Amino acid sequence: MRRLFVCLISGLMLAGTVSAKETDMAKDTLTVIHSRKSVISFTGAAVSTENLNTIIRAGMAAPTAVNKQPWSFVVVTDRKKLDALAAGLPNARGINKAGAVIVVCTEPGKANLQSKDFAIIDATLASENILLATEALGLGGHWTASYPYEDKMKHVRTVLGIPAAVIPLNVILVGVPTGVDKPKDKYRQDKIHWGQW
Amino acid sequence: MRRLFVCLISGLMLAGTVSAKETDMAKDTLTVIHSRKSVISFTGAAVSTENLNTIIRAGMAAPTAVNKQPWSFVVVTDRKKLDALAAGLPNARGINKAGAVIVVCTEPGKANLQSKDFAIIDATLASENILLATEALGLGGHWTASYPYEDKMKHVRTVLGIPAAVIPLNVILVGVPTGVDKPKDKYRQDKIHWGQW
Repeated sequence: MRRLFVCLISGLMLAGTVSAKETDMAKDTLTVIHSRKSVISFTGAAVSTENLNTIIRAGMAAPTAVNKQPWSFVVVTDRKKLDALAAGLPNARGINKAGAVIVVCTEPGKANLQSKDFAIIDATLASENILLATEALGLGGHWTASYPYEDKMKHVRTVLGIPAAVIPLNVILVGVPTGVDKPKDKYRQDKIHWGQW
Repeated sequence: MRRLFVCLISGLMLAGTVSAKETDMAKDTLTVIHSRKSVISFTGAAVSTENLNTIIRAGMAAPTAVNKQPWSFVVVTDRKKLDALAAGLPNARGINKAGAVIVVCTEPGKANLQSKDFAIIDATLASENILLATEALGLGGHWTASYPYEDKMKHVRTVLGIPAAVIPLNVILVGVPTGVDKPKDKYRQDKIHWGQW
């Protein structure tokens, strides 16, 4: 009912202005940002190719240094391959019931100044968009680390055939959440310095 | 009018389900993700403290490795200090008309495993939320680099009194956009590998 009320008000406000629309956009986006949580409890249901495409498309919309776009993405939905990945990733809790994983990869040789720093930053920005798009679609996501662990990166490269020059930054689990995982409130006023440190 | 139509439909669909609301959330969030652009053309108008707080609050909602939250944020709106920052940041185009900057800082000593890698990743995830919240509020943002440049980091530390143990990752410009900067379509199907590299 609240939504209906907001909608009716929005409609009434729409006499020649876009401010109501902008307000909805802001509210919905901030709600998704604050609802995003690391989901480790999945139902086991599949994730559609359409949703995976939408999620990765959102990833590519993030900025990259000097627009170099050094990233690429490996998507895995096959249960045998997910299990093979899991065998070398003890931190990837929940992968047994995830519908898919997205491995965000990055290639320092293709980044600004061929810098590993920019390659990691660019792929991390894309990863946050991926996590937010996942949440926005009503799915659950969870960044599990590959980089900077040499053993985990080697394992992911071996299972997925990723070239040595490419860094598999993470293994993002994507699935249908059971609902038990909740977002944390991490706001800390003392972490904001106004004007000067 | 389109928004009014969508709202009315959403209202009609709300007979006991949240799917219409979820659809709006997804659509609005994805719209913001794809509308985000690096804004360098600002009007010169101020940005309210309330908006800056909302933006930074969104930043803190991003995930951090093992929930270590190694970040902190310096916000500058004073024109003299913005000019002092600009003097050592030739890449910060548009800062002369920006309403504020947010310097996203990170401290390796407070990060998971006291790792600089995780410190940078955590602050980068927060930065993407900051850029998206800025866009969602109808403002414009632009990541300009401080890290990994030693000279720029030194300059930012000096102007803002940031301790040597803290890395000023970036200087994010925030302001009211003139509207000339447009988002890029960076979607590349060949960057997605299905099942295997």
